[in-house]
Amino acid sequence: MIPVGLDLGGTKIAAAAVDDGVVLARRRRETPQTGAEDVIAALAEVARDLLDAYPEACAVGVGCPGPLDFERGRVRFAPNIAGMEDAPLVDALHERLGLTVVLENDANAAGYAEHRYGAARDLETSVYVTLSTGIGGGVFVGDRVLRGANGLAGEIGHMTLLPGGPVGGDGHTGSWEAVAAGRSMARDASYVFSRKVSTAELFDLAKDGDRRALAIVDNAARFTGLGLANIVKVIDPAGFVLGGGVTSVGDFYLDRVREALAAATAGYPQPSVRMAELGDDVGVIGAAAVAAFEYGGSEPSGG
Amino acid sequence: MIPVGLDLGGTKIAAAAVDDGVVLARRRRETPQTGAEDVIAALAEVARDLLDAYPEACAVGVGCPGPLDFERGRVRFAPNIAGMEDAPLVDALHERLGLTVVLENDANAAGYAEHRYGAARDLETSVYVTLSTGIGGGVFVGDRVLRGANGLAGEIGHMTLLPGGPVGGDGHTGSWEAVAAGRSMARDASYVFSRKVSTAELFDLAKDGDRRALAIVDNAARFTGLGLANIVKVIDPAGFVLGGGVTSVGDFYLDRVREALAAATAGYPQPSVRMAELGDDVGVIGAAAVAAFEYGGSEPSGG
Repeated sequence: MIPVGLDLGGTKIAAAAVDDGVVLARRRRETPQTGAEDVIAALAEVARDLLDAYPEACAVGVGCPGPLDFERGRVRFAPNIAGMEDAPLVDALHERLGLTVVLENDANAAGYAEHRYGAARDLETSVYVTLSTGIGGGVFVGDRVLRGANGLAGEIGHMTLLPGGPVGGDGHTGSWEAVAAGRSMARDASYVFSRKVSTAELFDLAKDGDRRALAIVDNAARFTGLGLANIVKVIDPAGFVLGGGVTSVGDFYLDRVREALAAATAGYPQPSVRMAELGDDVGVIGAAAVAAFEYGGSEPSGG
Repeated sequence: MIPVGLDLGGTKIAAAAVDDGVVLARRRRETPQTGAEDVIAALAEVARDLLDAYPEACAVGVGCPGPLDFERGRVRFAPNIAGMEDAPLVDALHERLGLTVVLENDANAAGYAEHRYGAARDLETSVYVTLSTGIGGGVFVGDRVLRGANGLAGEIGHMTLLPGGPVGGDGHTGSWEAVAAGRSMARDASYVFSRKVSTAELFDLAKDGDRRALAIVDNAARFTGLGLANIVKVIDPAGFVLGGGVTSVGDFYLDRVREALAAATAGYPQPSVRMAELGDDVGVIGAAAVAAFEYGGSEPSGG
């Protein structure tokens, strides 16, 4: 079976026909910012183009940002795409394409690709962690995405790691995201240096040995190690896969995270930590894999 | 199929023949404190007694305290039973009984009983939480116990909730257990009142309106709410089942936990929280259920 995977991002739509994790053909276009109707038309257009080339394709997966309503096949809203409030993605695409359409959130889709075909392909259970502007993730057990009872499984960045710490985007104090994501490091750097400092500049300063920049980086890495350790105490995955922009800093940051994780799990068996492998195709491969799995007759595990 | 469930405790061994969650017959005796050989002989004896009464029984499950080596079917050690270091429970019982023998840790067994036959029997995913001297638990997905890659799944009491907080039994600071278990409440009460205060006496003082006792109880409940909320952000279970000695205090404590959980998940869908239902039989029912599941041909989910 050759499903089509669609990856809906804030700036571009990526699409691919995928055969068991291998990309056969790609399409790409800009994401319309003119409302859900146009976004759906654009998604349908790239999908149709691939379906014409691969008429044996029988399912379409869509990886989407933002909170999703899995039951109704809708996007609740997408922070970076205009006019997506309550967009009926599954029904609208099914109507246009005549095939099974499966919706998944983008972090779950990317993590599922790594779990099935990438860095975690040999693991029974894995947790995907995106260290980026925010912190997100996905949990995979066997051949399944663990969505959870309300679609919150894998919302690991909202775990509380420092009660009473900085207030995060969800209004709670001391979440992992609020103490260790790229945006929170930039917040702390801008405060410390009394001017706007990006995460990239912060890392440059830290690499140059700036004491205060290093303190911010060390602090974030320590909390990320704690976050991973906390996941171990709940589900003890066979391994973690790390992806997202912050990992592009490389070992300068990741060695600090590994050290913090080792400290936070001292006395326990050490979980394995791997880097994401699939690069830019991760979103389309994951969306296609989710579609293939659901088309196969079972459902990702839920409540 | 009628499996036999054995529940090995620090002071007594409970045993039962169980038919799909219903106890048909019970046996009980003291736990020998004279070494693994005698413990194994005692377990075999109560099991044999039940097997004679139910000759159709074809599997035996054993719920055990202490860290287990699932792969080798051994107890690594049992804190409250003398001489159990590296005890080969599975092989020794299999040799004596001639049946499939399945080992499970006691919190997982109890939680599995509640998941299949008790408070969570209608839920696809549930997490069992024992609030007792310590804090432990188990995670259940579909019809499976999630053991994790190294048997650490469900070791939720070791999650860090307050980095830099009190040192816990595992040498790490600020674990859930170190800030909210019965023993940690007693520690804080004994410090505050400058004399030995039990958890039971602490609750009595708090119910009488003692300001300092109430502060300890409120603080522990707040962290327990946070711990439950953190589990939601990782796997979003359909519900929690709470058991263990501390829950016997009733709503005086549990209402505080519910309030703390609601505060810690404000803005997210609210998870359901239920009280354990199965009472004293929970251990034998769970051990029997785990045996029935494995005898049925599959394995609890692991690494």
